[in-house]
Amino acid sequence: MSDDPAQHAAARLQIAMLIYPGMTLLDMVGPQAVFGHHADTHLAWKSMDPVPTDTGVTVLPTTSFDDCPKELDVLFVPGGFGTWDAMADDAVLDFLRERAPMSTLVTSVCTGSIILAAAGLLDGYKAATHWATYDILEAFGIESVRERVVSDGNRISGGGVTAGIDFGLSVLARLRGEPVARTTQLMLEYDPAPPFDAGSPNSASPEIVGAVNSLLADDMERAREIAHAVAARRREPASA
Amino acid sequence: MSDDPAQHAAARLQIAMLIYPGMTLLDMVGPQAVFGHHADTHLAWKSMDPVPTDTGVTVLPTTSFDDCPKELDVLFVPGGFGTWDAMADDAVLDFLRERAPMSTLVTSVCTGSIILAAAGLLDGYKAATHWATYDILEAFGIESVRERVVSDGNRISGGGVTAGIDFGLSVLARLRGEPVARTTQLMLEYDPAPPFDAGSPNSASPEIVGAVNSLLADDMERAREIAHAVAARRREPASA
Repeated sequence: MSDDPAQHAAARLQIAMLIYPGMTLLDMVGPQAVFGHHADTHLAWKSMDPVPTDTGVTVLPTTSFDDCPKELDVLFVPGGFGTWDAMADDAVLDFLRERAPMSTLVTSVCTGSIILAAAGLLDGYKAATHWATYDILEAFGIESVRERVVSDGNRISGGGVTAGIDFGLSVLARLRGEPVARTTQLMLEYDPAPPFDAGSPNSASPEIVGAVNSLLADDMERAREIAHAVAARRREPASA
Repeated sequence: MSDDPAQHAAARLQIAMLIYPGMTLLDMVGPQAVFGHHADTHLAWKSMDPVPTDTGVTVLPTTSFDDCPKELDVLFVPGGFGTWDAMADDAVLDFLRERAPMSTLVTSVCTGSIILAAAGLLDGYKAATHWATYDILEAFGIESVRERVVSDGNRISGGGVTAGIDFGLSVLARLRGEPVARTTQLMLEYDPAPPFDAGSPNSASPEIVGAVNSLLADDMERAREIAHAVAARRREPASA
C-alpha cells in the first residue's frame, strides 16, 4: 500500500503452503526456512488434524482450507509420494483454484507442479518438477523444463526436493530484493558442499540412476495411471 | 548381527532426533530427509506435546525421552534460536548423556553441537557449529572447526542449517556405504545451484555479514551469558 521501501520491507509476507499426507517434508521446509523470518506461514489442509509426511514426521496445520487467508504473496505446493492422491482430490484442487487468482506468485517444488497442473493452474506455462517425473507433468500438456528453478510469468517452480532452497531464495529476491535474499542465505549458511557428485541424472552414474528408477518404478506406474485419468477428466466437457 | 551385506543393508537405521521449542526445523529436516527412507526416526521430547519450531511450523514428537529406544545408530541434535534454553535444561542434557554411550554416532547440525557441549559430550572432540557461534562453542572448551561437516571419532557435526544435507549424506555413507548415499542424493535431486554467492562469511560482502551480525546481536549476547553460566556450573565440583 506504500511506495516507501522501508515500510514495504517491514510488511510480513503472507505465504500459504498446501500440506497433505505423504508429502515430502523437505520440499516444504526448504523454502519455509527461507521465507520463515520474513513471513506469516499458513500451513493449509482440509482440517486441523495432524498431517503425516512421507518419512515419519507429522506436522500440524495452522489453518483449514476454508479459513486460509485469501490475499497471498505466495501460494505454494510441495511434492512427494502423496502427490498422486492429492492431484485426484477435488478439495485440494478447488482450494488451489480459488486462492491462485488472489496470489502474487503461484509456486511449487518437486512434484507439487503436477498438483498445480491437475488444477489447471499451469495451462500455458512452463514448469519444473522432480527429474523422474517429467513425463507425468507432460501428461497434463505442460512443458516441463529441466532446470532447478523455472519462472514463467507469476508461476515459479523448483525441481526435486532440495531445489526448494534455491527456489526459496529466488522467490525471496523477487519479493524483497537481492540484499534480503543474500542476508537470508548467509543466515542459513547456504554454501553447499555435497560430499558426492550424484545429484542429477546427468552427474550420477548409470548404476545410480538405475537404482533410483527401480526404487520408484511401482510408484511411477501408479502416478502415470492417475495422471492420465485426471487429465482425461479435465478434457471432458462439464456435462459428461 | 550378520555380516551378510544384503541383510545388513535391509535393517532400518534407528535414529533419535532431539526436538525442542524454538529449534530450526531445517536443521532437523535436512538430515531427516536423507535418513528417512532408510530409518525409523524417533523424534524425542520431554512429553508428547506438539513442539513449535522457530519459523512457525509445529511438529509432533514420536516418543518421550523416557520411551525413546536406547540402542541407536544415530543420536542427533538440531540447533536454532531455542538452543540457549535447551542447553540450560537438565532434562535435555540428561537425555543426551544417557543415550550417547549407547549410540553408534553422536551428532549435531548448526548450534546443536553447543547443546552436546553443554552436556559434556564433546569434551576432547572437535566440532562444527553455525558460523556466527564459534565463540559460544569455545566457551565450553571445545575446538570449533570452520568446516561444513566435521568428523572426530564417533562425533559428527555439521555447520549452520543447510549443512544438514551435506552432513546427512556423509553420515549415511558411513553407515550404509557410498552407493546408498549417492542413490539418496539423486532421489533428493541434491545438485545445488544457489542463485547468489553469499552462503558463508567468506563469500558474502561485508555489508551482508554486518546485516546478519546486527540481526543476531541481541540473541548472541543472551547466548554467551547462558553458555558461560552453564560452562561455569559444569566446572564446579558436584558438592558446590
